[in-house]
Amino acid sequence: LDTAPRLVIIGGAEDRTGECVILRKFVSLAGGAAARIVVLPAASEIASQLGVEYSELFRSFGAQHVEALAIETREAAKDTAAIALVSGASGLFLTGGDQLRLMNLLGGTQLDVEIHRRSAQGMVVGGTSAGAAVMSATMIVDGHSDAPRLGTVQTGPGLELIRGVIIDQHFAQRGRIGRLLSVVALFPHELGIGIDEDTALVVESNVGVVLGRGAVTVLDAGEATTNEAVDVRSGEGITLSGVRLHSLPAGRRFDFSQRALV
Amino acid sequence: LDTAPRLVIIGGAEDRTGECVILRKFVSLAGGAAARIVVLPAASEIASQLGVEYSELFRSFGAQHVEALAIETREAAKDTAAIALVSGASGLFLTGGDQLRLMNLLGGTQLDVEIHRRSAQGMVVGGTSAGAAVMSATMIVDGHSDAPRLGTVQTGPGLELIRGVIIDQHFAQRGRIGRLLSVVALFPHELGIGIDEDTALVVESNVGVVLGRGAVTVLDAGEATTNEAVDVRSGEGITLSGVRLHSLPAGRRFDFSQRALV
Repeated sequence: LDTAPRLVIIGGAEDRTGECVILRKFVSLAGGAAARIVVLPAASEIASQLGVEYSELFRSFGAQHVEALAIETREAAKDTAAIALVSGASGLFLTGGDQLRLMNLLGGTQLDVEIHRRSAQGMVVGGTSAGAAVMSATMIVDGHSDAPRLGTVQTGPGLELIRGVIIDQHFAQRGRIGRLLSVVALFPHELGIGIDEDTALVVESNVGVVLGRGAVTVLDAGEATTNEAVDVRSGEGITLSGVRLHSLPAGRRFDFSQRALV
Repeated sequence: LDTAPRLVIIGGAEDRTGECVILRKFVSLAGGAAARIVVLPAASEIASQLGVEYSELFRSFGAQHVEALAIETREAAKDTAAIALVSGASGLFLTGGDQLRLMNLLGGTQLDVEIHRRSAQGMVVGGTSAGAAVMSATMIVDGHSDAPRLGTVQTGPGLELIRGVIIDQHFAQRGRIGRLLSVVALFPHELGIGIDEDTALVVESNVGVVLGRGAVTVLDAGEATTNEAVDVRSGEGITLSGVRLHSLPAGRRFDFSQRALV
């Protein structure tokens, strides 16, 4: 039976030296001491270093079974031992790096299929920065936009672990509201989710709870008017009027299906 | 008879070497060749330099009567020659600098009274950066806030040339959405107006038209729910749900009394 995904979506730069509220939450959701955690650092060019670092952290929180999975080629994503590792995992952690690199290595492989199968069975997936961006069906690949502007933000298909949202990270710190507005203007049926650094959205049963130091910003263009795709040429400013914005600090719960604060 | 204020509210870093669309608009509204323009650089610590620079620019656009007014003490703001200059002006330009410095020098002086009298008679007031921030009744003095958080943003009384709005500048470039959300959470009856660099809101008859390279972001918390002042302690995150956001590129018109795109 498929369940709603269980995700820990982290806006990057999460605390790894102090109380580590967010990373401890991931371990706890994955089963605590009994958790079987796989760290997948494939998004990063310093994958082995991040693999070791996160593995040691998760062990220091009491998880007894933690393995880092090195995937440096698409061939490696067919390896039966790698697939078996994910088959037995209660938690999968995607590090930061480059979201396109992760999708290029993983997309459509048997490992990818296995991740989806296990996610549907209740495996917790955590991801930070690029590892957070890849979770949605449509992900932001690149692009900077001061003001919402057509054609300045590139999107592509993501891992599709969660539907109906587009995730952006390092949100306040990199001033990404214009970039996320550009995307929801194009895809007003999707909620734009901007996650600050050292902040996470913990998703279970289609409800997200905010955890950490910053805020999660939800942009709902469902009832907004926009001139996008009607009379805007590439590079021109996009008009958005009536976007609903929610700014949620730690402890707040947001229901994605209702598009509303709980 | 009092008229609605005529304002050119600039988000800072406006083009001064290229087509100068925004500064030319200010001169044109002030009367073009026949304009009588006073540059007031009192917000700046390099006042005389800015006074010369803007005066030369405005003259280069064809304005024949341009004077820079040096106000370095509150005494100088009582000077009858200074007051006479504003009495005869069709346009007043407030440079960037420190909004608190400008208010400290100007606030409550006879020059301040004269500026209001002339503004009510139709004198155009232009201002950039700090010169834009001071235009509202409540101005943002200082404060940075990644996520909306109580007590992190200081506000104070501004020049009160326009009612019902709070202006923030360098908006996208300095990632100030959190800061402006913090303020509209406190004052939900005021519209938060975030103006990007090299972008202006030209206000006439309670309608603002966007001019320049970036966007003007309007935050309307009028129908939002917020926990501010109810259960938030200083430094804690503010929850805002249902803020209406408008993102307006050049050419768009916004009606402040209707709180809606025209």
